[in-house]
Amino acid sequence: MTTVLATPPPGRPAANPAPTGIEDLAGRATRALGEFLDQQALLLTALSPDLRPAATALREAILAGGKRLRPTFCYWGWRAAGGPPDSPGIITAAAGLELLHVGALIHDDIMDGSDTRRGRPAAHRRFADEHTAAGYRGSPDAYGTGAAILLGDWCMAWCDEMLDGCGLPQARLRPARRLLQTVHTELIAGQYLDLLEQARGGGSLDRARTVIRYKTAKYTIERPLQLGALLAGAGADVLAACTAFALPLGEAFQLRDDVLGVFGDPTTTGKPAGDDLREGKATVLVELTRQHATISQRATLDRLLGDPRLDADGVRTLRSLIEDTGALAAVETMIDAHTDAAIRVLAGTPFTKPAKQALEQLAVAATVRTA
Amino acid sequence: MTTVLATPPPGRPAANPAPTGIEDLAGRATRALGEFLDQQALLLTALSPDLRPAATALREAILAGGKRLRPTFCYWGWRAAGGPPDSPGIITAAAGLELLHVGALIHDDIMDGSDTRRGRPAAHRRFADEHTAAGYRGSPDAYGTGAAILLGDWCMAWCDEMLDGCGLPQARLRPARRLLQTVHTELIAGQYLDLLEQARGGGSLDRARTVIRYKTAKYTIERPLQLGALLAGAGADVLAACTAFALPLGEAFQLRDDVLGVFGDPTTTGKPAGDDLREGKATVLVELTRQHATISQRATLDRLLGDPRLDADGVRTLRSLIEDTGALAAVETMIDAHTDAAIRVLAGTPFTKPAKQALEQLAVAATVRTA
Repeated sequence: MTTVLATPPPGRPAANPAPTGIEDLAGRATRALGEFLDQQALLLTALSPDLRPAATALREAILAGGKRLRPTFCYWGWRAAGGPPDSPGIITAAAGLELLHVGALIHDDIMDGSDTRRGRPAAHRRFADEHTAAGYRGSPDAYGTGAAILLGDWCMAWCDEMLDGCGLPQARLRPARRLLQTVHTELIAGQYLDLLEQARGGGSLDRARTVIRYKTAKYTIERPLQLGALLAGAGADVLAACTAFALPLGEAFQLRDDVLGVFGDPTTTGKPAGDDLREGKATVLVELTRQHATISQRATLDRLLGDPRLDADGVRTLRSLIEDTGALAAVETMIDAHTDAAIRVLAGTPFTKPAKQALEQLAVAATVRTA
Repeated sequence: MTTVLATPPPGRPAANPAPTGIEDLAGRATRALGEFLDQQALLLTALSPDLRPAATALREAILAGGKRLRPTFCYWGWRAAGGPPDSPGIITAAAGLELLHVGALIHDDIMDGSDTRRGRPAAHRRFADEHTAAGYRGSPDAYGTGAAILLGDWCMAWCDEMLDGCGLPQARLRPARRLLQTVHTELIAGQYLDLLEQARGGGSLDRARTVIRYKTAKYTIERPLQLGALLAGAGADVLAACTAFALPLGEAFQLRDDVLGVFGDPTTTGKPAGDDLREGKATVLVELTRQHATISQRATLDRLLGDPRLDADGVRTLRSLIEDTGALAAVETMIDAHTDAAIRVLAGTPFTKPAKQALEQLAVAATVRTA
């Protein structure tokens, strides 16, 4: 990695009232989401007061935690294309991406059977618990799943509503809306390929990379950047530069995430240690481990990976195996190389200078080794 | 019921090339859906050839069966507000409503644990079977549920894409898009209230009616009519008339559906006989039965309703009980009264004459006793 730019210490007043730091942008996106959710909650409870618990659960799922990475990239795509620093419209439009994201996470937690999200009960668990507490009829788990499917549906439905209502001119909204539809289709495609890959039990580094490409590179970085850029009226050169920067950075992001999924601290990741191993997630880290394993290591990997009852000893065994095969070191090298590549691309883009600086800072902050 | 207008015999050539009959409109909506799905399938398989089975499953879920009621009402809303008979744009926009609908059905089948839809395996069953056939890892049911959640997500995501791409002028699309967003939110609200009501085990006629209001009156009739009307540039008077006509007709529709859910022929409904009874669906029919039951009838109702293992004898017992308490006759009277009310409202609306005629025909055809 070339340089590590420190993020400004929290609480220090910014010289410029426009959003400059990552924390400030995340806070503004969260406030825009809060305002939008206030309106939606009024709408829902006017339909029926019985919808109040759903509105509350939506609010908590959306507002509690989350780094607002996609809104942040969207804002910097806007700035990269010359959008003015202080526009409430871009913050609202960018925040809409978080609704798509949370909707996908809620559905993903059902699919994975994950009981926690951002350190709290996942939506399906929360509703299953409410079912039990209220002494309702039928299966608490089925109720929890049903309610969480609908919660996710609401989030996804509202994404384009935030964009449409952001107040930017119609001529800018039209191409942005088309791009958001593409993002939505690609996101679901990424989820589907991930599900399929897990069912197939991995075995293909190429396929694992395709999943990364759609789940992270495009969806977390390229598309949010392009959405912001389109809203600022960007031309084809800026849009192509968003892609060129996003693809290597997206690989680095996802690889860092895969490492954190195995070695990360649960208090930081908000997920129990080893959850990715229990799920048998087909990551590049795991595929590299498989490729470089001896016959006996391979047997251990096949026995433990994807075992839903994997205990702390099993997690430790798999961690050692991933280190001993050299897969961890190889992935760390890949992360550094991809991040460097992204930063080199950035230097040659037609992006504005403040956007180049901020994007370099974001690239480093989100891929740096934390353990 | 005032009059029963026969629908024209299928296959008879229409005097006018513009869509006049219900069958013709459904066919045109289906063709528009087919064209849209061809494009989306190209898009998905370009992302990854592994998405081909998903594209095929989507195509079959959307194109196989279905009466295209919502597109039909949308078209007649357009005509009611003076839209020209032969506009490909309105057919495409109207067909988009079917995507929202199929998405909701796919998610609903997961929530209800329904194994069949339109006489074929439900999406989650289809994918569970594919999992088994392919010898994939993990639970076939979990895979089926996950894949079906994503299939439903795609359908819902594509609804506004069809509207946006229909080719009608932007000034008409803007208010229509806002309405479509409202429909989407209300649809999910209806599903949520239905799930909640089932978990509570019914007990409130008022709450059962709220579910009807959002799941059928607004979502199947009022909103589609208004969407078409807005696309034709309707003013407030026409929009209000859509509501006035839709609310009584929606109650009649849903009540007919409830009766068919208990007494209908499985070859017509595409669902196993008594499925609504096994699910313990909180319908007006069931609530009226409960209210008019003797103590011993009430005990039988409570014992059998919602029993997932209910057999043919149990279904027969519940059917008799629903007839003996007078609930069935009461519901038939309500259906007639609501349909009559809708037709009386229609006469006083500012709708065009051809729309009035077609809507009366639709009202009768969809609420008439079929057994």
